[in-house]
Amino acid sequence: MPANPRPELSHPGIDDLSLVGVLHALADPTRLTIVGTLTREADGRACGTFPVNVAPSTLSHHFKVLREAGVIRQEERGNRRWTWLRTAELETRFPGLLQAVTDEGQCM
Amino acid sequence: MPANPRPELSHPGIDDLSLVGVLHALADPTRLTIVGTLTREADGRACGTFPVNVAPSTLSHHFKVLREAGVIRQEERGNRRWTWLRTAELETRFPGLLQAVTDEGQCM
Repeated sequence: MPANPRPELSHPGIDDLSLVGVLHALADPTRLTIVGTLTREADGRACGTFPVNVAPSTLSHHFKVLREAGVIRQEERGNRRWTWLRTAELETRFPGLLQAVTDEGQCM
Repeated sequence: MPANPRPELSHPGIDDLSLVGVLHALADPTRLTIVGTLTREADGRACGTFPVNVAPSTLSHHFKVLREAGVIRQEERGNRRWTWLRTAELETRFPGLLQAVTDEGQCM
């Protein structure tokens, strides 16, 4: 039996990202806070350590929206799920977008 | 009786714009096409001349969403309604955002 029974998370390829999908994923205060927090965490961040005040199931939904839109990458490490921004890929696909939304991330 | 009986349109002040509201307004293919079209029209554009294929009532809804989020300004001129991007104000409030979304506006 594997140490981690959870199925591997899937992530869209960079060419499958859509601007509408990314904008939709970003158009939420909690998700903007997650993204703003991750811009200061080049090594990623463990779930459960984000400065948001929502129920775990709600937070899980927000991560799913961001992951499926291609904004974040997540990986299981032991018993924790880690999250990163797909900064370089987003910059390649939508130059300037992440910077534009995270400059404002602290004063929505 | 006034020549134009329609009530004047209201527009939010620059300080009332929210990043979430602007992102939500932009997160739609038709609205991104409207915005992308307007970036090439410094003098604005008359309604009914946008390269979108939606019913007039749907288009009217899209303009309302963009106007209420502060992305566009609209004004009645005779029997036509004209639309502009609030380019300078958006750039002041959310630097780089409009550029980031309209660079990509043609390939969503």
